[in-house]
Amino acid sequence: MKTIGIFDSGVGGITVLKAIRRALPTFDILYLGDTARVPYGTKSRETVLRYSLQVGDFLYRKGIDLLVIACNTATAYGLHEIRARYDIPVIGVIEPGAQATVALSRSGRIAVIGTSATVQSGQYRSTIQHYLPDADVREIACPMLVPLVEENWCGTDVAHLILQRYLGQLRGQVDTLVLGCTHYPMLKEDIARVLPGVTQVDSAEETARTIVGLTGVPAPGTLGTLGTTTYYMTDTSQRFAEIASSFLGESVGSIEHIDL
Amino acid sequence: MKTIGIFDSGVGGITVLKAIRRALPTFDILYLGDTARVPYGTKSRETVLRYSLQVGDFLYRKGIDLLVIACNTATAYGLHEIRARYDIPVIGVIEPGAQATVALSRSGRIAVIGTSATVQSGQYRSTIQHYLPDADVREIACPMLVPLVEENWCGTDVAHLILQRYLGQLRGQVDTLVLGCTHYPMLKEDIARVLPGVTQVDSAEETARTIVGLTGVPAPGTLGTLGTTTYYMTDTSQRFAEIASSFLGESVGSIEHIDL
Repeated sequence: MKTIGIFDSGVGGITVLKAIRRALPTFDILYLGDTARVPYGTKSRETVLRYSLQVGDFLYRKGIDLLVIACNTATAYGLHEIRARYDIPVIGVIEPGAQATVALSRSGRIAVIGTSATVQSGQYRSTIQHYLPDADVREIACPMLVPLVEENWCGTDVAHLILQRYLGQLRGQVDTLVLGCTHYPMLKEDIARVLPGVTQVDSAEETARTIVGLTGVPAPGTLGTLGTTTYYMTDTSQRFAEIASSFLGESVGSIEHIDL
Repeated sequence: MKTIGIFDSGVGGITVLKAIRRALPTFDILYLGDTARVPYGTKSRETVLRYSLQVGDFLYRKGIDLLVIACNTATAYGLHEIRARYDIPVIGVIEPGAQATVALSRSGRIAVIGTSATVQSGQYRSTIQHYLPDADVREIACPMLVPLVEENWCGTDVAHLILQRYLGQLRGQVDTLVLGCTHYPMLKEDIARVLPGVTQVDSAEETARTIVGLTGVPAPGTLGTLGTTTYYMTDTSQRFAEIASSFLGESVGSIEHIDL
């Protein structure tokens, strides 16, 4: 296995890419952000699935060996159909996040935050309860959080007030919170101020761990050449390049524009 | 003239539809919201133009007599190309808004708020300065306001804090503020609390006035049958139907799903 395809509705999946690249530096990665049609999280199952399959087809035709759906909404609505369509392994972000949550929660009182569509799908709840049938799972749609992160307002009084509105009700009620959207890890510190002592599960990191388990880490001393990263986006405005770079922690460099 | 086509990236253009329907109740209206690909306001000129022409073609083929681009971003990036493409009148929201602004501002010190793309285009500034060359026009991108309105958080402390961040700098600096996005009229009262005494220009209302001028209002006593309104959307999730109804002030009824 040499090439990993990662797709997201936009640039949030860069957090997954970053975690995978750190763990598996010799792999080539193709990242596709469907920035022309972002977000998926406010839209219907039908639309999300149609777009996800177009994106999946593009990456599959590039000859990838593994496909990562680095978007919670696309995973929630499309994982089964996407998995059935290709003859390569397909990994979504929900299963790894749910498994880590079950391992980490002591009380079984769990909350999941995500886009409207992810919450509507109920996929986190059902996956968590598959492993822990008695789990008490609350799901809260937080549609303001993606724009908040993209506005770069993490750490501000606006972030605090918005998180209070969404999460204040959970104080003392849960011991684990699933960050069910790839943008949310940027708000970890703000969330910790509203919900001190609550364990936050980052699905991006958990997904990277699952992939490392699947591919195997190269033995020490056998590390080959560093892999390449190629970025495709359906809209290549400067704004997306900037947000992508802030997620990556360095410039993403050149982005190839494609139409789907 | 009998049938008016209105398009928007999503449901915000319903504010324009409402104003037109009130002024011209006997006209048939076709409304198309490109909800599968909403928003346009964060995307590039190239993407916005491509989508706008697909939407325009769909409505044109339905046999409309007049096309209204009820989306500030689509107007900013596409008005000239769209106008050149069809042999019917095409009205955008920027020209009517800019003309009203010039008529209303006493000091010539004006601010425009809009999406990132609308502000980036500079179309409001250049149109206002076409009529009033000495106008001092500040343009401020406010990407958090559309999600705020769609979350139905108008009138809350979050709305106040966000508007303070965007508009607090304008206090005492301008006498007129252009609401350069169809969602913003829902925030009129919140804005008035941050910028008391500043005249707010609602491009939706001004556009409806322009269209009435163009079509002529039926003479009293000659009013015929009430016209019909047909809604097409590229994503028909319940969420969009609900937001559309809240903009309209009544249920939008059935929405026809189309793929573009």
